[in-house]
Amino acid sequence: MKRGPRPIIGMTMGDAAGVGPEIIVKALAQNEVWNICRPVVIGDLDVIADANERTHTRLRLHGVSQIEDAKFATGSVEVLDLRNINLKELIMGKPQAMAGKASFEYVRKAVDLALNHTIDAITTAPLSKEALNLAGYHYPGHTEILADLTGTSEYAMMFFAGSLRVILVTIHMSLIKACAAINKHVVFKTIRLGEQTLRRIGFETPRIAVAGLNPHASEGGLFGDEEEKEISPAVADAKRIGLDVSGPYPADTVYYRAGNGEFDLVVAMYHDQGCIPIKLVGFNVGVNVTVGLPIVRTSPDHGTAYRRAGLRLGTANPQSLMEALKLASKLADRR
Amino acid sequence: MKRGPRPIIGMTMGDAAGVGPEIIVKALAQNEVWNICRPVVIGDLDVIADANERTHTRLRLHGVSQIEDAKFATGSVEVLDLRNINLKELIMGKPQAMAGKASFEYVRKAVDLALNHTIDAITTAPLSKEALNLAGYHYPGHTEILADLTGTSEYAMMFFAGSLRVILVTIHMSLIKACAAINKHVVFKTIRLGEQTLRRIGFETPRIAVAGLNPHASEGGLFGDEEEKEISPAVADAKRIGLDVSGPYPADTVYYRAGNGEFDLVVAMYHDQGCIPIKLVGFNVGVNVTVGLPIVRTSPDHGTAYRRAGLRLGTANPQSLMEALKLASKLADRR
Repeated sequence: MKRGPRPIIGMTMGDAAGVGPEIIVKALAQNEVWNICRPVVIGDLDVIADANERTHTRLRLHGVSQIEDAKFATGSVEVLDLRNINLKELIMGKPQAMAGKASFEYVRKAVDLALNHTIDAITTAPLSKEALNLAGYHYPGHTEILADLTGTSEYAMMFFAGSLRVILVTIHMSLIKACAAINKHVVFKTIRLGEQTLRRIGFETPRIAVAGLNPHASEGGLFGDEEEKEISPAVADAKRIGLDVSGPYPADTVYYRAGNGEFDLVVAMYHDQGCIPIKLVGFNVGVNVTVGLPIVRTSPDHGTAYRRAGLRLGTANPQSLMEALKLASKLADRR
Repeated sequence: MKRGPRPIIGMTMGDAAGVGPEIIVKALAQNEVWNICRPVVIGDLDVIADANERTHTRLRLHGVSQIEDAKFATGSVEVLDLRNINLKELIMGKPQAMAGKASFEYVRKAVDLALNHTIDAITTAPLSKEALNLAGYHYPGHTEILADLTGTSEYAMMFFAGSLRVILVTIHMSLIKACAAINKHVVFKTIRLGEQTLRRIGFETPRIAVAGLNPHASEGGLFGDEEEKEISPAVADAKRIGLDVSGPYPADTVYYRAGNGEFDLVVAMYHDQGCIPIKLVGFNVGVNVTVGLPIVRTSPDHGTAYRRAGLRLGTANPQSLMEALKLASKLADRR
């Protein structure tokens, strides 16, 4: 297999009963994709062929059992066929163990290929936590699977939606635990991870705003002291190493300001603080990136959309997946 | 003083060193205002006259020392002149005790007039907590002053921004205290207050969505148990009395769904959860309403904007205040 200038992106198929297969074939029908990368679907050929037929997308598919057999001819979609799904048993729109296990296997394979540099980045289609659970895998989401499979302890979720970019200091834990988990080390570490990621895609000196934890960023200590004790010291430390960082700012206005171009990145203290503005601004265009991993991984910022996959076949929007592919290509290019 | 069909709205002038006087004269220059209400400014005539002149707005002003002298002639602005500001000593764009004390006096007067039904509603221009503090008044904001002056213990902040409407279960406290303060009684009470307010402006059976507290609304108990123990029981109680209410929903998508017309109101668990989406969607059009008071009170959803008031005279946008006047008129009409 020859390496060309365009990066090879492994697209994991996600949950076979969700919108993953559909948005993959729709995205790969866009010429734009072929100009920026060489995609290979890591999934089940039968399922992709079925989605191709049901959506009348008419992609040419080329199933391979090992990636070394991939030809990457433009317009012909390479599918690394892991044969985990029995199409006759698959029920669209429902969580099921077969699809849960399969979605885990796609990610495991993709991580192996990325770690040994056979592929240059991973873009993951949505999987279902419920289906994973049914198959005996207990993870809050993709992010934690990837951290686990790559043995990474310092990672973060980062989101891109147009001019708004957000990185999360804490992720999947109760809000009361997130409050307790905020300390200057983790805030500093997250600022650094965000800054490094933006530099890799061309921001020379990203302008970083750090959000507060409490209402009005605690109004000078009136509502909580995490700003004074943890967040401000982290901002000071980041300034000391030369970063263009400021805050903590009241969370209710900092996302508006960033979206209007005042900052390149907002450091959010907890899941919903960062995800509420990202989903509002970028419902169809948001991209999720796991940063801190030894591999590049992006994904669309939505789930399996089981209801849509089950009842409104053919109506899923591939835009967010397209954006995820573009960002993966950019991040891979510059490594 | 004769009562006509249009409600009398008392507009408190807010902090004299902020954008309050400027946005008041700009708003009152719009014909639209006069079709929906009879406004009376509760403030200082000298300051309003100064703003009128500096912005070249050319309103006709009619100062009165008691509201009984107001004529409410269309195009002539009644100003109840409390004479609290010495214009020569006022420094624009800076918090100062004189303006802090004055802004408190305007609110106190407005509350008295509303409680005895001399005026039908209050719309407040922004005041400065810092200036209030300098004058010896210690409140987190307008909301708490109004609750105090009216002896109200069960009240809530509600926000309107286009098709997105949000009411807060907790307000000005640290996030960790807000987590602890969520219980089924306060969630139920807030659902009720929101529902009553929407019915008053014409929603027969408002569709109410309740947000979760934790990421993914706790993902079935994986991240926190407030959804199961407190929020779901409150939703069940509200359903039992016939309200169209559902949830708890993951907070990161419920605001998007409401903004797209799926719900008329979102019940937010804490300050930033509700204020982040409101400020993103409605930066120039957001309106803040204090619900649960024995009087009607609305305000624009922004602060004194001291920097703008001090340095960029004449550039303040009156749109949010206009929206606040419109909503006050609607709420007053239906009492």
